Amino acid sequence: MAEEKHLRDMRTVWWQEDARGEAVCMIDQSLLPGQIVYLTLAHEQQVADAITTLKVRGAPAIGVTAAFGLALALYRFLREQGETPAPVEVEEHLRTVGEMFRRTRPTAVNLQWAIERVLRRADRALSEQCSLPHLAQALRDEAQAIADEDFQACLKMGRYGAELIADGDILLTHCNAGSLATAGWGTALAPMYVAHRAGKHLHVYVDETRPVLQGARLTAWELQQEGIPLTLITDSMAGHFMRCGGIKAIFVGADRIAANGDVANKIGTYSIAVLAQAHAIPFYVVAPRSTIDLKRSSGDQIPIEQRRSDEITHIRGVAIAPTGIQVANPAFDITPHSYITAIITEAGIARSPYNKSLPDLCLGYHDTERQADI
Amino acid sequence: MAEEKHLRDMRTVWWQEDARGEAVCMIDQSLLPGQIVYLTLAHEQQVADAITTLKVRGAPAIGVTAAFGLALALYRFLREQGETPAPVEVEEHLRTVGEMFRRTRPTAVNLQWAIERVLRRADRALSEQCSLPHLAQALRDEAQAIADEDFQACLKMGRYGAELIADGDILLTHCNAGSLATAGWGTALAPMYVAHRAGKHLHVYVDETRPVLQGARLTAWELQQEGIPLTLITDSMAGHFMRCGGIKAIFVGADRIAANGDVANKIGTYSIAVLAQAHAIPFYVVAPRSTIDLKRSSGDQIPIEQRRSDEITHIRGVAIAPTGIQVANPAFDITPHSYITAIITEAGIARSPYNKSLPDLCLGYHDTERQADI
Repeated sequence: MAEEKHLRDMRTVWWQEDARGEAVCMIDQSLLPGQIVYLTLAHEQQVADAITTLKVRGAPAIGVTAAFGLALALYRFLREQGETPAPVEVEEHLRTVGEMFRRTRPTAVNLQWAIERVLRRADRALSEQCSLPHLAQALRDEAQAIADEDFQACLKMGRYGAELIADGDILLTHCNAGSLATAGWGTALAPMYVAHRAGKHLHVYVDETRPVLQGARLTAWELQQEGIPLTLITDSMAGHFMRCGGIKAIFVGADRIAANGDVANKIGTYSIAVLAQAHAIPFYVVAPRSTIDLKRSSGDQIPIEQRRSDEITHIRGVAIAPTGIQVANPAFDITPHSYITAIITEAGIARSPYNKSLPDLCLGYHDTERQADI
Repeated sequence: MAEEKHLRDMRTVWWQEDARGEAVCMIDQSLLPGQIVYLTLAHEQQVADAITTLKVRGAPAIGVTAAFGLALALYRFLREQGETPAPVEVEEHLRTVGEMFRRTRPTAVNLQWAIERVLRRADRALSEQCSLPHLAQALRDEAQAIADEDFQACLKMGRYGAELIADGDILLTHCNAGSLATAGWGTALAPMYVAHRAGKHLHVYVDETRPVLQGARLTAWELQQEGIPLTLITDSMAGHFMRCGGIKAIFVGADRIAANGDVANKIGTYSIAVLAQAHAIPFYVVAPRSTIDLKRSSGDQIPIEQRRSDEITHIRGVAIAPTGIQVANPAFDITPHSYITAIITEAGIARSPYNKSLPDLCLGYHDTERQADI
């Protein structure tokens, strides 16, 4: 079945258990597309480092990764303790590891959400006097459930989004919000995959997405694998091709969405949204409900990760700027909701006014207890 | 004197005559800022190649280069001919070399303008029965005059433009329209240099300018040399910093300006202009009158150079995209005049309606005979 094949081809993060013990496995996205290298990480610190150094990236994917990482941390903890630790020690250990994961990337809320969900599962199991080995299995299962739910959510977003794509459409996307950024299918790319498999002809302009080039390295590769025609462009060309290239719609992902519909996403998203509005091109954000942070009333309240200057001054280790200059490197920007045509989630499509439509879509999904206060 | 020091520090292209013969010399801009390498080119084909491969770039600078290249071609021709050639052969040779230079870069009109000016000088000298050695000197002098006039024009643009900059302003520029792009001072950067030397405090956001990174490599370097504080950003950050960074004005150069004020400039300029309008930030184009092509009624008529795909798929020889993908690489885009607050020339500042203000500024400068029909 095509959908299953897609999952196998593009598996981003998964759990492994064998005679050597437990591990979180992933494809090293920092080396794509030049090298396909799989990592087997047996320590939670390695998992945190993989998130920080963008070996795994994409808001849903890093949520899944941290969830597996917490399960891994517990398995390791139980193995290393000479005698069975007290539940309070287990709880303390999981909180500490959770804090470590939280600090890896501050903007994507799915990460915080997944950590909170796994910790809540641990609390519940411990309060039910669950044995520690069973607790470890429960956390592993919870992480797997997050991955499985993300996969299904992406497929649903793909189906909703595909309805907005007509046969022959020329589209544009920024960064990588594809299979690699999720447990499968992707967010922004899922509608393209579903439309393509339904026989619609597409052509996708792919922004290369400086500084880390997720568009050139990952999205171009994913679309190429899928057989969807694409044109790789520099980020600076987006406006030119909106004016001259016949672009019919723009699809991007999100790292966090505030209650009013303001969207934090990869740096450059805001420019594209303004350009889209100037050209009367629909601008769609595709993201699961785990990306929606109803506790933030607007984008101003979303923390923006500042990354190292050498991402700008060097490309693959080669200096491209004079030494000693000042650099700004915000990893994300905020797109105010007024630029967003619709937000496509697994529960349906939200439109303006978002401060009504988003809470409606999230009814019964988020409860305030469950969402991390970060 | 500071202005002279500036010229010496930043000399881009110059003529050399010594016992070994004549040569066109230049700093190899493709290696900046990592290596400072001066080229001594003794053959017009080398000069053409240097333009094509961006060893020298910037609309005014390549005009000066081609002018010197034509003089070089004549010196070489006279040296190689066993017997004194007929004037008609000289004329034919110069036309052929002129055609070679014309083909190097189709968008910048200064190149066409400078070639035409030198060829016209040759016609005049030949019609006056000028001796061939004197003709060669006349062409060299004409090329030098183009360079000297460009230097003076840049200084004048700098003075006009500096009036638009207040103490403490935060500015943004794209690509390199600095000393390196001209015979000195630059176009878009000249107002910053003049304002800075007048004691105004500035801070400049510099777009890195993919794919060739003229912003990161050249503008950042020039401003650093001059002691003007700057922040290097990726092109995708321009909108974010217009929203959050307090940018007060944007200065860019131009490769060709149509009679209605539409501007061809480095790819990405159009996006910035649209973003500037959305943020109510003045968007200034700085260019000498040699950039204005009154024969083109609008930007639609300006040819846009398409460059090689490996400028996008590789950075300094390292692949950053999957092999075999389709790439678009227009070197320039068109910014419609409605986005342009003012066009700053050496003869004053033009404002809308440009189809009146530009011809007025060019009165007595362009005559239709003189401008190439290309």
